[in-house]
Amino acid sequence: MSREILSLANAATQKLRAYDPGHDLPALRTEYGARLIELGSNETSLGASPAVAAAITAALPDIYRYPDPKGGALKRALAAQLGVETAQIALGNGSHELLMLIAQCFADAQSSVVYSQYGFAVFAIGTAAAGAQAICVPALPADHAAAPLGHDLAALAAAVRPDTRLLFVANPNNPTGTWFDDAALDEFLGRLPDHVVVVVDEAYAEYVTAPGASSAVRLLRGGGRRNLIVTRTFSKAHALAGLRVGYAVGSAEAIAVLERLRESFNVNSLGLVAAEAALADTAHAARIREHTAAEREWLAARLRERGLRVFPSQTNFLLVDFGRDAREIEEKLFRHAVVVRPMAGYGLPNCLRISVGLRSESERLLEALA
Amino acid sequence: MSREILSLANAATQKLRAYDPGHDLPALRTEYGARLIELGSNETSLGASPAVAAAITAALPDIYRYPDPKGGALKRALAAQLGVETAQIALGNGSHELLMLIAQCFADAQSSVVYSQYGFAVFAIGTAAAGAQAICVPALPADHAAAPLGHDLAALAAAVRPDTRLLFVANPNNPTGTWFDDAALDEFLGRLPDHVVVVVDEAYAEYVTAPGASSAVRLLRGGGRRNLIVTRTFSKAHALAGLRVGYAVGSAEAIAVLERLRESFNVNSLGLVAAEAALADTAHAARIREHTAAEREWLAARLRERGLRVFPSQTNFLLVDFGRDAREIEEKLFRHAVVVRPMAGYGLPNCLRISVGLRSESERLLEALA
Repeated sequence: MSREILSLANAATQKLRAYDPGHDLPALRTEYGARLIELGSNETSLGASPAVAAAITAALPDIYRYPDPKGGALKRALAAQLGVETAQIALGNGSHELLMLIAQCFADAQSSVVYSQYGFAVFAIGTAAAGAQAICVPALPADHAAAPLGHDLAALAAAVRPDTRLLFVANPNNPTGTWFDDAALDEFLGRLPDHVVVVVDEAYAEYVTAPGASSAVRLLRGGGRRNLIVTRTFSKAHALAGLRVGYAVGSAEAIAVLERLRESFNVNSLGLVAAEAALADTAHAARIREHTAAEREWLAARLRERGLRVFPSQTNFLLVDFGRDAREIEEKLFRHAVVVRPMAGYGLPNCLRISVGLRSESERLLEALA
Repeated sequence: MSREILSLANAATQKLRAYDPGHDLPALRTEYGARLIELGSNETSLGASPAVAAAITAALPDIYRYPDPKGGALKRALAAQLGVETAQIALGNGSHELLMLIAQCFADAQSSVVYSQYGFAVFAIGTAAAGAQAICVPALPADHAAAPLGHDLAALAAAVRPDTRLLFVANPNNPTGTWFDDAALDEFLGRLPDHVVVVVDEAYAEYVTAPGASSAVRLLRGGGRRNLIVTRTFSKAHALAGLRVGYAVGSAEAIAVLERLRESFNVNSLGLVAAEAALADTAHAARIREHTAAEREWLAARLRERGLRVFPSQTNFLLVDFGRDAREIEEKLFRHAVVVRPMAGYGLPNCLRISVGLRSESERLLEALA
């Protein structure tokens, strides 16, 4: 009998669990066809800009070539739109890869990483993969007026220790939908010592309509804060989840650290041209933002009419508290071919996370709930 | 003056250098147009199967959805073609990601990793990123009859220490083009203790025409060796370098370790359907193999006629020794819009690595060399 292979893995990997992908969506699509309503992954049912398909088609003859390892054209377009330098941008195979890369660059078995309860799952995975100690700070209480279940920024700042190298926050946060405004971020950053790299994950930033809440990228113009990294994605408001394109914005020095470990061809060539086309189609992006904001309020109102608790959201999803174990409700929806995301894995067993889709999709959801 | 950000990175990252992408190929394509001859990246100038473009076009409407996190359809097709179970396959964002992932799962600051001088560059990068100790074993001498500059398998086996967790070999190897046959691999594996995971990187395996040399995947059928992982790619003989699809084949237990750390959506959705289409078009794959084998011999003969030393190759590239510092020759070729790969970074300053392209590309190379 030969040795167990898992015993050869390093300590960090032995403690990790494999990701549970949940329902087999490709199989469900085959089974249900157009009847399937997918509201579990916070995709944008409006789909990508038509310019994306044209850009991909034009690039098809060259897919036998490696992608541009610098992603030069996309970085120039992002830099122009964001008002930063190209050296302040790193591209990733989705922002997921960038979050893991940041943890792998800055955390290790000798350091700690701070993040919030109910924070995005990848913060904990990246911390564990790096073998670092996780400091998970309790979230604000569910009855908090402004940000129920949201990040407790004061407690997060207070949790920083001398060995803390990373602090992850998401704004707005997945899966709670909560957010904080510019003034709160400024105050928070002012409390942090300079031995901590602060990562603000803004995967849902394009959906924010609340006054006084903009992107932390504003702090990175003109060089900006050295120990701040903002991560963003083309998966949500640019509707390119399938193509895996994310980006990190930071000081040129922080980005240069990530470039040491970044895999040279980490973003595929069709993703690069697709993201560039999506970025240029500002009218389509505006349409997705406006549609989502309107449908979010419409769906939240319908759910509240039914007596459900809907947490305030600045994203393209709603966190809904059913007041009892939501597993049965998720299963009932599933039998009606409506896929939503259970939250027991996040420690919120009474909640479901429901993406804001087309009006017709929301109506199918409401019918299935009835 | 705030703290240097690099000082906050962990020890492994502080020792890494950023990848040097070399010439800016997108800029050169704009400058030279069709005149540019790209023989630096071992791509396949015949291009991808026409079925790939059709599969991508059909998948375009769904790019706003996340990819299948299991890659189920592609894994089933690979399993059928390779004669293994789907649980024995992990998919990667190119085999580059899988090699890094393997190092991150099995190596750490307490362990060592063995690989050969002139081995594929990512073996050293993955080892350094994991903070492990590198044991780089001298290659066979340049005057070795069968495998000049090739892996010294006996010395690699002898270099394994009690703390060694990983051993990387490439067959055939990039950048030397050298290979070993099935009997040599069997003898080598027989010498290795079971506390070492052996990775055989077969990025170029489809190009092998030498008798007695097949894929190490044969050892993984019916469950197979537990501590063997074979990595392969769609970037070379399947001509999909732009789409970033690689795969690892191993025992189900070894693959389950990689799945703990694999990012859930690491392979993009167009890459998944493209790889499936490329795999199904066995006639196109055969054409690429036959064309490459014939053109490799033709180009090697022309270069040898000019008195140059051309190392034996079972890949789609040739390692050519110019008998003097090759930098000047590389620059001369570049002025003629012919891009090849300098080898000084590999410790082979007199050599250039030249991809086997179309006959017309080889002729342009030969003209430029004249």
